[in-house]
Amino acid sequence: MRDLTTLYGPESVAIVGASDSPGKVGNVVVRNLMSSGYEGEIYPVNPGGDSIEGLQCYPRVQDIPGGAELAVICIPAPVVPDAMRDCGAAGVGSVVVITAGFKEASPEGEALEKEITRIADENDMNMMGPNCLGAMNTHTPINVTFAADFPHKGDIAFFSQSGALCIAILDWSLDQGVGFSKFISMGNKAQLNEADFIADAAADTESQVILMYLESIEDGDAFMEAAREAVQKKPVIILKSGVSEAGAEAASSHTGALAGGDEGFAAAFRQAGIIRAGRMQEEFGKATAFIGGINIAEGRRVAVVTNAGGLGVMATDALEGAGLELAELSEETQQRLREVLPDMAAVGNPVDIVGHSDEDTYAAALDAVVRDPGVDMILPLLSPTAVLDPNRLAEYMIEQVRAHPDIPMSASFTGGESVRAANETLRSSGIPCFPFPEEAVEGLVAMVEYGEARTRLQKGQLLHYEGDMDRVREIFSSVREQGRRILLGPEAMAVARAYGIDTVPSELAESAGEAGELAEQMGFPVALKVASPDIIHKTDIGGVQLDLEDRSSVQQSFRQIMHNASEREPDARVYGVEVQKMFPPGQELIVGMAQSPPFGPLLMFGLGGIFVDLMEDVSFRLARHLTDMDVAEMIEETKAAQLLRGYRGEAPKDLDAVRETVGRIAQLTRDFPEIAELDINPFFAYENGVAALDVKMTLAEDAGGAEEHEG
Amino acid sequence: MRDLTTLYGPESVAIVGASDSPGKVGNVVVRNLMSSGYEGEIYPVNPGGDSIEGLQCYPRVQDIPGGAELAVICIPAPVVPDAMRDCGAAGVGSVVVITAGFKEASPEGEALEKEITRIADENDMNMMGPNCLGAMNTHTPINVTFAADFPHKGDIAFFSQSGALCIAILDWSLDQGVGFSKFISMGNKAQLNEADFIADAAADTESQVILMYLESIEDGDAFMEAAREAVQKKPVIILKSGVSEAGAEAASSHTGALAGGDEGFAAAFRQAGIIRAGRMQEEFGKATAFIGGINIAEGRRVAVVTNAGGLGVMATDALEGAGLELAELSEETQQRLREVLPDMAAVGNPVDIVGHSDEDTYAAALDAVVRDPGVDMILPLLSPTAVLDPNRLAEYMIEQVRAHPDIPMSASFTGGESVRAANETLRSSGIPCFPFPEEAVEGLVAMVEYGEARTRLQKGQLLHYEGDMDRVREIFSSVREQGRRILLGPEAMAVARAYGIDTVPSELAESAGEAGELAEQMGFPVALKVASPDIIHKTDIGGVQLDLEDRSSVQQSFRQIMHNASEREPDARVYGVEVQKMFPPGQELIVGMAQSPPFGPLLMFGLGGIFVDLMEDVSFRLARHLTDMDVAEMIEETKAAQLLRGYRGEAPKDLDAVRETVGRIAQLTRDFPEIAELDINPFFAYENGVAALDVKMTLAEDAGGAEEHEG
Repeated sequence: MRDLTTLYGPESVAIVGASDSPGKVGNVVVRNLMSSGYEGEIYPVNPGGDSIEGLQCYPRVQDIPGGAELAVICIPAPVVPDAMRDCGAAGVGSVVVITAGFKEASPEGEALEKEITRIADENDMNMMGPNCLGAMNTHTPINVTFAADFPHKGDIAFFSQSGALCIAILDWSLDQGVGFSKFISMGNKAQLNEADFIADAAADTESQVILMYLESIEDGDAFMEAAREAVQKKPVIILKSGVSEAGAEAASSHTGALAGGDEGFAAAFRQAGIIRAGRMQEEFGKATAFIGGINIAEGRRVAVVTNAGGLGVMATDALEGAGLELAELSEETQQRLREVLPDMAAVGNPVDIVGHSDEDTYAAALDAVVRDPGVDMILPLLSPTAVLDPNRLAEYMIEQVRAHPDIPMSASFTGGESVRAANETLRSSGIPCFPFPEEAVEGLVAMVEYGEARTRLQKGQLLHYEGDMDRVREIFSSVREQGRRILLGPEAMAVARAYGIDTVPSELAESAGEAGELAEQMGFPVALKVASPDIIHKTDIGGVQLDLEDRSSVQQSFRQIMHNASEREPDARVYGVEVQKMFPPGQELIVGMAQSPPFGPLLMFGLGGIFVDLMEDVSFRLARHLTDMDVAEMIEETKAAQLLRGYRGEAPKDLDAVRETVGRIAQLTRDFPEIAELDINPFFAYENGVAALDVKMTLAEDAGGAEEHEG
Repeated sequence: MRDLTTLYGPESVAIVGASDSPGKVGNVVVRNLMSSGYEGEIYPVNPGGDSIEGLQCYPRVQDIPGGAELAVICIPAPVVPDAMRDCGAAGVGSVVVITAGFKEASPEGEALEKEITRIADENDMNMMGPNCLGAMNTHTPINVTFAADFPHKGDIAFFSQSGALCIAILDWSLDQGVGFSKFISMGNKAQLNEADFIADAAADTESQVILMYLESIEDGDAFMEAAREAVQKKPVIILKSGVSEAGAEAASSHTGALAGGDEGFAAAFRQAGIIRAGRMQEEFGKATAFIGGINIAEGRRVAVVTNAGGLGVMATDALEGAGLELAELSEETQQRLREVLPDMAAVGNPVDIVGHSDEDTYAAALDAVVRDPGVDMILPLLSPTAVLDPNRLAEYMIEQVRAHPDIPMSASFTGGESVRAANETLRSSGIPCFPFPEEAVEGLVAMVEYGEARTRLQKGQLLHYEGDMDRVREIFSSVREQGRRILLGPEAMAVARAYGIDTVPSELAESAGEAGELAEQMGFPVALKVASPDIIHKTDIGGVQLDLEDRSSVQQSFRQIMHNASEREPDARVYGVEVQKMFPPGQELIVGMAQSPPFGPLLMFGLGGIFVDLMEDVSFRLARHLTDMDVAEMIEETKAAQLLRGYRGEAPKDLDAVRETVGRIAQLTRDFPEIAELDINPFFAYENGVAALDVKMTLAEDAGGAEEHEG
């Protein structure tokens, strides 16, 4: 992990390009730093000035006596490399390059960006940016940005790939009373990227929750590692934008076609335990669940308490829509509620204390439900009335959460002026409180997501299988030597078998006699298919024969297929005919893999057959970091799972064998990153065992032999 | 349509139960009315007082000289009937019954509620409530509620089934600056219900948009009629809560099982042109699209203009997620943009004018895109910067919308203090403006939904078919006479044929000879099935024989099936054996109907076969008000539509015949509301024509013969 102490809490800061002209970035940064409450040394650097804003000015960073731990650079792009070299020579620890005009601007800018990154690396300096707003830490405090404001001190570490969004969010946050520990515009992420910022924020003591706005991820592996570590300590909530750009590339496999760019991010976020937000307000809403204290739900059962039936109904809809459950209150709890609530109250869930009840009655109801062992979380709802003091209720709720820290709350006090103070009291004490019930439910969802993510990270067992790597290398070499990237059916089958995946017997025959011989060995009936990487629609050209029951019909069919191929596709490379033992139909599934940058191989599982693309009943996980829980959940997410369990009286299928196959495909694609795409379709599941009936595999265009890679 | 003038703008108001004791409802109502600015006469009614709040008090309503147009009742429930009779005698036009303790409280209360409703009806009085907060109209102005506040004057007519929610929303709205024309707590809706309020608000000149919070609908037909009328004039946005309660009833058909209670509401809202909101903030967000002017989008193509790339990316995601399209800007537009924007700007869509551009540059970009014929709506996004004045930009946007009223805008100026004034300027001029891009997209969605809803109402042709009603009545009578509700296969087939629905030939045989005879007439092969309402799993007991190719095997199979049935199900009523001509397989579909109170018959269409329940690839529409557009869209919503168009090289199927079948089922179920459930499954579509292979039909429990009913 990088040490970012000199970035977030330096003893001294040099501002390269400091200026006395109001409105210039080099002036705004100096003034922001001075007014932020920063207590270290501030050194303006500018060859042209003696003093700036009353501070002594130095021509170069090297001229500062005692040097500077942090340098902020706001001079034109072409002269940034020189400044970077100066910083390196002066022993600067971290550099913030605010200057724009790099990768985002032009090819020359891109070259310049590479150069300054190299200088930073060579001099062991952290470099943030270029092309960024800068960094703020409210706890140091320090503000080395050209933003117009400084955020409220708070628990949220916020990192944005967009500087303009930072400015907008900052303005908004001051209005909303949202506070931050760190507020960072990451810029071009040439060196320091999201992985570094996550790792650091996970380790600090000021941030309760990490929020990010991302448009891309620089290094998939580093990101996954940092996030998985961080989530053990605090929630990471990410809004990943640019979802819709994805998946435009042409793909030759079903998996490739269905695995749009976002599927990889979705799988990565899930496997890293990241809470994903789809909208900015959802991101901050979910963050609210962790401000003032990290709320973790141990289950999905929610008790709703309300003084207004309508709010309870809305909350129930939202809960069920979000996949949470209304807790079933025990008879004992209901009895207790009957004792403390008025006659007209509802003691089921939602518990409706009715509108004329006061805060003591509300508190008594909360007290009853919190003791119910069937309750994991509480959703208190309030409509303002003349007889209930929301501030006293808030105080009571805070006491209760302290007494029962394992039962988190997310509340909605609907209204404006009459509930404002109570709302703020609750939030500052770690109880999220929102204007509408649906938002409070979003808070609960975040608590559940975080609890489940931690469980997944702690209990999931990484899967490992042994494969015959030499055999696979041998097959790939032979394919490459023949100038191909697409494996023939029998080759792909052999690769699968080398990794312990059950396939139907399938061999390549180069003569009619060999075909007959192979068929005898396998046992009848068999199917024949023309073996050619150039013929896609084999059936259409008479390249397939099914249900062959004896040797002579196999031999005759061989000749017919070869004849058809040479007649109908004279230019195709034909390697012979694939002889395949015919298996009885099982539950038709598909298992596949496509490369999903920056995360590597992405697995797909789902319902197979001709409707794969139509139904899109599929789920995805990264092959790297794959655990037994991931595989189980991946299967469970599809409707295929219902069929495997035995739909409408059918016998259940061999789920263990299906799971193992997914795990073995993961191992194969981790071991051989040169596999670009893979489809097993159909993949049949039987009562006992499974079988791959057709395996399609394509190697990467630019491959350098079978490299080993453990994800 | 009811005349609600005496409710919303009475010349005089009597408050029955008026009181001088602060805090009592009868006192709060008097004070609220006095302080609301109401200019008519106010008459407190209370037998015990001389004057209340300085106003002369009358013992009974009849004692008021000149009477009162509106009476507000806040006396205990048991004496409300007397007061209602007094109002009737005094010629009161409208009554607001605030008092609780009616249907919501007890069976006695329910009886009391029926009584006061009867009194209101007999005396031609409008009655709002009972059990409500009361009514407010900011334009009269008048406030006859016991709420603590009075709303800002505005464009939204708001009606809520929950009084507590009204109080909460009112408090919230004052904080948010949201204004209302009418603000109504509907209470128990014993007489005046949502249909009356919608019809009135549609006709008034003060409301631009109608908002409702509903938990139930009293009269489905009246509601549909009022809503369809209203939507021609102004948008109706409804949050229907209690979604999750629905669908708990047991159903014997696939359609019944899949048509949970919410499917009926969803279909009704769509067919009435209502914009549905899932969350309270969404409801007000969508309403914002119509405040200050009704924005209607003519298409789904959006041009995004932004000064911050990140906001543009977020907006693009949100647009595509919502089913809107990024407009393709013409070469001419792009050229114009190149001329007015700085070099680094992006002239594609989103148009990124970049962060250092000022409001004039922004305005020039808007000016270019608004003239592009490929643009239906504009989404301006702003991140606050030092160089752009949001207020001047707002003024420019208002001018532009006035010049191009057919190209609506929904904007997002992200931030707090620095964009607040611009935001308010825009909103008050009919341009919705939101803190985040995703919310602005929600505004655009509302404009598109409203535009499409109006088109659907204006262009959709109601479908009508003629059926042989006598034949159906005859079959139903015969079924009822036999003490059955479930029709035998051949009976259900005959009903379908009477409405022009193509079915496979299917007849009941009572003897082996008759079975052979029928099979000869139909042509071989045929299938035989035991005809019994008591045997559900016919195959399991040997009650089905397929692929019978000649007369003698038909006769033999008849005897075998009858034997099997009497052996295995000795208690079942067996009416013989169904002889059915075997048809080749077509595209397997399902068409069905289930009753969906309060809206009547609800049609279902979807992918048929054994996976109906697993895939749930189905769509729903009400049989009443069904148009050609509804049927076309209903089919298009399913994946089955892709199969019908010819999936993967298959020949397209007879879509017209499929549509006609749906229309004929609608006619049948409108004509015979006593049909409780109906499934045609499988329903085969061929290249030419269609065929119902199996029809299941169940009559309602409590039916009084075949009534005619035109929806």
